[in-house]
Amino acid sequence: MNKVLTLAKRPVGKPALSDFNFIDETKPSPAEGEMLLEAAYVSVDPYMRGRMNDAKSYVPPFELNKPMEGAIVAKVAESKNPDFAAGDYVLGSLKWKQFQVSDGAGLRKVDAALAPLSAYLGILGMTGLTAYMGLSLIGKPQAGETLVVSGAAGAVGSVAGQIGKIKGCRVVGIAGSDEKVAQLTSKFGFDAGINYKTTDDMAAAIAEKCPEGVDVYFDNVAGEIADGVHQNMNRFGRIINCGAIANYNDTSAPTGPRVESMLIKKSVRMQGFIVFNYEDKYPEAIQQLARWLKQGSLESSETVVAGFENIPQAFLDLFAGRNNGKMVVKV
Amino acid sequence: MNKVLTLAKRPVGKPALSDFNFIDETKPSPAEGEMLLEAAYVSVDPYMRGRMNDAKSYVPPFELNKPMEGAIVAKVAESKNPDFAAGDYVLGSLKWKQFQVSDGAGLRKVDAALAPLSAYLGILGMTGLTAYMGLSLIGKPQAGETLVVSGAAGAVGSVAGQIGKIKGCRVVGIAGSDEKVAQLTSKFGFDAGINYKTTDDMAAAIAEKCPEGVDVYFDNVAGEIADGVHQNMNRFGRIINCGAIANYNDTSAPTGPRVESMLIKKSVRMQGFIVFNYEDKYPEAIQQLARWLKQGSLESSETVVAGFENIPQAFLDLFAGRNNGKMVVKV
Repeated sequence: MNKVLTLAKRPVGKPALSDFNFIDETKPSPAEGEMLLEAAYVSVDPYMRGRMNDAKSYVPPFELNKPMEGAIVAKVAESKNPDFAAGDYVLGSLKWKQFQVSDGAGLRKVDAALAPLSAYLGILGMTGLTAYMGLSLIGKPQAGETLVVSGAAGAVGSVAGQIGKIKGCRVVGIAGSDEKVAQLTSKFGFDAGINYKTTDDMAAAIAEKCPEGVDVYFDNVAGEIADGVHQNMNRFGRIINCGAIANYNDTSAPTGPRVESMLIKKSVRMQGFIVFNYEDKYPEAIQQLARWLKQGSLESSETVVAGFENIPQAFLDLFAGRNNGKMVVKV
Repeated sequence: MNKVLTLAKRPVGKPALSDFNFIDETKPSPAEGEMLLEAAYVSVDPYMRGRMNDAKSYVPPFELNKPMEGAIVAKVAESKNPDFAAGDYVLGSLKWKQFQVSDGAGLRKVDAALAPLSAYLGILGMTGLTAYMGLSLIGKPQAGETLVVSGAAGAVGSVAGQIGKIKGCRVVGIAGSDEKVAQLTSKFGFDAGINYKTTDDMAAAIAEKCPEGVDVYFDNVAGEIADGVHQNMNRFGRIINCGAIANYNDTSAPTGPRVESMLIKKSVRMQGFIVFNYEDKYPEAIQQLARWLKQGSLESSETVVAGFENIPQAFLDLFAGRNNGKMVVKV
């Protein structure tokens, strides 16, 4: 048997378990030039919420009653493709199926000896690359500047903050529990943390933790947290718009303070991006991240949930902030 | 006698004539090294509204019961400074007085033979430079791209749009009367214009006039006009935040649709600036603007109001859109 996870209906607002469906298919057989892949680690990511809508975005929507898909590390169970051998591990955008065949297009081998397999979905994968590209290409932090990161204990945020420390910045993180905030300083080496759930006045809290103002803001959340940071931006500040998880489940267009006057008064830049814009820079970035990881200047953070059948719940837990770092499902 | 215009009170919301006061002073005499200046042309600009508030911004607030100040072209009436001769014209940030003395610091001579004196307050002055810097350094328009300009018939907007045409863009302008919109195409060579006062659905109007979407948006106004343009931004679009006149008289923080999701989905950049950031580039920009002006690729647009006593009304008229291009007062 071959378990397959499909999109049963398009969520309105917050997704629910009933938006997903499990079906059973027969296990496929690879043709000449193909291989049989067995999912080992499945990535669940906030951006997938957007693909569940029937709306134009930077990636096409998931189709109803078809398998969802995303980054997966899979084991080559059987190979009729000369470029891959049984026992190899590969990374790529694959369907949410226990078993599937592939001709190898878009897949790359990963080295299980160099780093744990799940790292290729996190710190050496899309989330690590997202942090690296956003911070270094858009934020361009200089030594002595102050960097604020929201979603700071998350997969992207924890890496962005750590790279900020490597670059010589004062780094302040915003997260959603005292436990996560404690981890920011103890595990990731941030200078200070703010628990937004117990903070009434975010602008004042930022001002307190950032006495010299904010030069770079790595924004994973948008919403009211961002409003508070915006009020503390320094002249020539840079805002990296990486995510807006506060708004992903909104059913109407979210409103908030207009940003234009702040941008003008302080000559601030806000820039949105997706990691795929910088595919040509992946190899050098992965090398750099792996080097820092090996040197111990980067700590990886992940929540590993066991069982293919728990993918939907793991995905929903992202929006409740139940993950600690990169959320992956070990099949 | 020497008429002086002071700030009588800080406006709440929209400024009124009663916020200004005229006083009479005795005409000053220049000491050794100084000169007596007689105001010839006084610039009134929307940014001055911000300085009337007692709030921290990129320029300090005007002081109550002190003369307001801004860009002025003045005639040297009498000189005890060897660098300037009686009859010279100078440009600089000067007080709103008929006569004042200066030691010449911060002033530069302007050539009345090269361009009309008022041009040094407009197309060759701060507004022309603002259009030039914002468009070329932030917007970076490429031939074949679509540029939208709001406040398009204004001093900055009309120059921004014309530079867009010089760079080979499709240029669409937004202005506040049928007469101004007609002028965009007939006088300034824009490809199309939109009258926002007679447009219910700005997003649809932009979509119609910009069938290939918007690559660069030169925003002088913010507010609901900006919201409509934002919905039409192309991937890798650039928004130049030059002004937010829609919000300058607001007494509470203006709200509107949050921009983060748009910025991320389309990898769009929004960047605020003030022209003073680029002072080192003024000489080359003035040369380029003067060259285009001489070649006839740039049309200047200005509204000249006569009489020192009409400065307050000319300033108020900016917010009612009664000016056509750069508003200056001929003393």
